[in-house]
Amino acid sequence: MTELNKGATIGIFGGGQLGRMLVQAAHKLGFKTHVYDPFDDTPAGRIADNQTIAPFEAEAAVEIFANCCDVLTYEFENIPIKAIDHASQFTNVYPDKKALQTSHDRLVEKTFLRDKADTPVVNFAAIETMNSLSEFVHEFGAPAILKTRRFGYDGKGQVKVNSPRDVKAGFARLGGTDLIAESFAPFVREFSIIASRGIDGSIACYPLTENVHKDHRLHTSIAPADDPQNVSDEAHAITNKILKALDYIGVMGIEFFELEGGELIVNEIAPRVHNSGHWTQDGGCTDQFEQHIRAITGMKLGEITLKHVVKMTNLIGDEILHVGTLSQKPNTFVHDYDKRDINPGRKMGHVNEVISKV
Amino acid sequence: MTELNKGATIGIFGGGQLGRMLVQAAHKLGFKTHVYDPFDDTPAGRIADNQTIAPFEAEAAVEIFANCCDVLTYEFENIPIKAIDHASQFTNVYPDKKALQTSHDRLVEKTFLRDKADTPVVNFAAIETMNSLSEFVHEFGAPAILKTRRFGYDGKGQVKVNSPRDVKAGFARLGGTDLIAESFAPFVREFSIIASRGIDGSIACYPLTENVHKDHRLHTSIAPADDPQNVSDEAHAITNKILKALDYIGVMGIEFFELEGGELIVNEIAPRVHNSGHWTQDGGCTDQFEQHIRAITGMKLGEITLKHVVKMTNLIGDEILHVGTLSQKPNTFVHDYDKRDINPGRKMGHVNEVISKV
Repeated sequence: MTELNKGATIGIFGGGQLGRMLVQAAHKLGFKTHVYDPFDDTPAGRIADNQTIAPFEAEAAVEIFANCCDVLTYEFENIPIKAIDHASQFTNVYPDKKALQTSHDRLVEKTFLRDKADTPVVNFAAIETMNSLSEFVHEFGAPAILKTRRFGYDGKGQVKVNSPRDVKAGFARLGGTDLIAESFAPFVREFSIIASRGIDGSIACYPLTENVHKDHRLHTSIAPADDPQNVSDEAHAITNKILKALDYIGVMGIEFFELEGGELIVNEIAPRVHNSGHWTQDGGCTDQFEQHIRAITGMKLGEITLKHVVKMTNLIGDEILHVGTLSQKPNTFVHDYDKRDINPGRKMGHVNEVISKV
Repeated sequence: MTELNKGATIGIFGGGQLGRMLVQAAHKLGFKTHVYDPFDDTPAGRIADNQTIAPFEAEAAVEIFANCCDVLTYEFENIPIKAIDHASQFTNVYPDKKALQTSHDRLVEKTFLRDKADTPVVNFAAIETMNSLSEFVHEFGAPAILKTRRFGYDGKGQVKVNSPRDVKAGFARLGGTDLIAESFAPFVREFSIIASRGIDGSIACYPLTENVHKDHRLHTSIAPADDPQNVSDEAHAITNKILKALDYIGVMGIEFFELEGGELIVNEIAPRVHNSGHWTQDGGCTDQFEQHIRAITGMKLGEITLKHVVKMTNLIGDEILHVGTLSQKPNTFVHDYDKRDINPGRKMGHVNEVISKV
C-alpha cells in the first residue's frame, strides 16, 4: 500500500477517549475521520467528521462504514472479530485480525507470546474444571491468578488464589466462563513500551515507561523510566520480536514485569494506542496517536526522541473536577475526554507534567 | 464571570484554520464547540461538535447560535460588528466589541494606539482626496503607504507611494474607498508578541517572535527571537499598555517594526490568535489556542515559558503536498488545515521545526 492521499478518511471502531485522541491526531495531519460506535454522543464521535451509530454486529452498517473509509483501525480490542473480518472485505484494517485475535483471549495471547514470539511469560494453563485449577496450584505453587480469558480489563474478571484453600472459592467466583490460571510474578516494577511499526516494516519504539497502578487501574506513568537493572535493550529486543511475529502495523502497548535480578516477563499486549503512552503528547516528540495514524496511513513513522521527562496521571471519576486547579500548575498540561457522566472509577482525563529536560 | 463549567460550549465565529485550532484546543480541555460560518464544510466546522451555516448578517441565526453557547469568540476580525453586537445580547463575547471595532479600521486602530494606548506608531492621516495624499507626502516625505482602512490582509489593499509623482496613480488605484496614508517605517526587523489577558486581568505574553514575510505574507516565525538591540522589555511594556487600554480578554497578536537604534513602532494589532504564534504548539508551553480558550472561559492562563527554539514555516498553496516529506524530517511537526481546495497563495498548513533547547 502506498501512502494515503491528503484528505483521506480514517475510520475508527470505538468512540472512547483513545478514539478521540486518534481523531485529534488525524485532524492535525489533515485527514478526515469517521467513528463507528454503538452509542451516540461519544467522546470521539462528537468531534469526528462523520459517525456511524450502530452495533458492531450490524453487517450492513459495517459495510457502509468500510466503504466510506480509506483505512480502518480500532481503539479497543474487544471489537468482535466478525466486524473486522467483514470490514476487511472492503478496505484495509490495521492492526489486522491476527493482532486482535491474539489479544482477545489471554490463553491465545500467552501461547502466542511463548511459542511464536519466543517471549518470556509467566506459567499459565487453561482452566476448565476446579480440578485443573488445583493441579495448576499444585504444580506451580501459590499465589496464582485466575482470570477470565476474555473481556478482562483494569483488574476486572480476575481473582487471586493465595493458597490451595482458595481454589474452591476462586473457581466458584469466575467459573462458567473460559478461564486461564497464571502464576503470580513477583515483580519489582511494572513498565511498558509503546511500540510502532509502519507498513514498510520500519519500527520505532519509545523508551521505557514506568507504570504505577492503583486499585488495578493505571495511576501514573513516567517516561523515560530510570533503568537501574539495565533491562531496556532486552525489553526492546522482545518488543521487536512481538511486532515482527504479528507482522504488526500500528501502535502497540506492551506491558512488562521486571523481576528482582532484571529478569523480564511480558504481562500483556494491547494492539492499539495505550494509556501508558499518553505522556507522549507532551514529551516533545511525535505522540502515540499521531504515530498510529502515520503507521496505518503509510506515512513514515515520526520522531520518537523525547525532550522532557513527563509524568502522566490519570484523572479518575470526579478527579476531573479539579482540572481547573491542576491546569494552573506550571508545566502541567491537562487532557479532558469530555465524557458526559462522571462515574467512580471512570477514566475522565489525564494530566501530563513535564518534570525536567531529558 | 466565574470559570465556565466542564463541558460548556464555546462558540466561534469563523470556520478557517484559526477556528480549527481553537476547536482542537477546546476539545483538549473538555469543552464543546460550535462554529458559525457562512460556508459549509470548513476546516473548523467539520471537526466542531456543532455548526451553524448562515451569513453573519442573519440575526435570527446569530441569536440561536449565541443561545446555544456559553461564551463566544471569533477567529478573524472582519466579522461584522452588528453580528457581535447582536450576539452580545445573549451571551458573553470575548474579545469584546471594542477590540474588534479598533482593529476593523486602520485609522481607528492607529488613532487608538497613539492617543489611548500611548504607543509609538508611524505618521498617518485619513486620505479623502488626492490632494490630502499630496499633502501627506509633502509633510512626511516618501515613501508612504496608501491603504484601504478596512478589509486589508496579507498586503491586499495597499500601494506604495515612492515619490510625489506616484500620488496620482496610487490614489487612482485605491480611491473610492476610505483610505489611510502611513509613513513607511525603515525597519530592520519585524517581530510580534503573542499576548494574552484573562478575565481576572492577569497578563501572560510569550517572548518575542521574529517574522519574515514573503510576497506580503508571513513566511516564517522564530521564537524566542534573538534580541541584539535589547528591545524585549519595551515591547512587553507596550503590549501591556495595549491590553489594558482595551480591557482586553483573550489572545492578541501585536506586530512591531524594530528600527535601527532600537526604536519600536507598533504596526498592527489582531484581536485573535495569530499566525505568528503557531510555533507555540510545539514550544513545550501552553499553545496560543489553548491560552485563548483559557482566557475566554475564565480559566487561569497557562504556562508560557517555552522549552525549545521553534521555527514555524507556513505551507502556502501546493507546498502542502510536501507534507509527507516534511514530516519525515527529525524534530519537525506538521499541521495540516485540511482545506478542500489548494489555491496559490492560500495558507494550507504549517510546519514547526524544533531547532534547539532554549
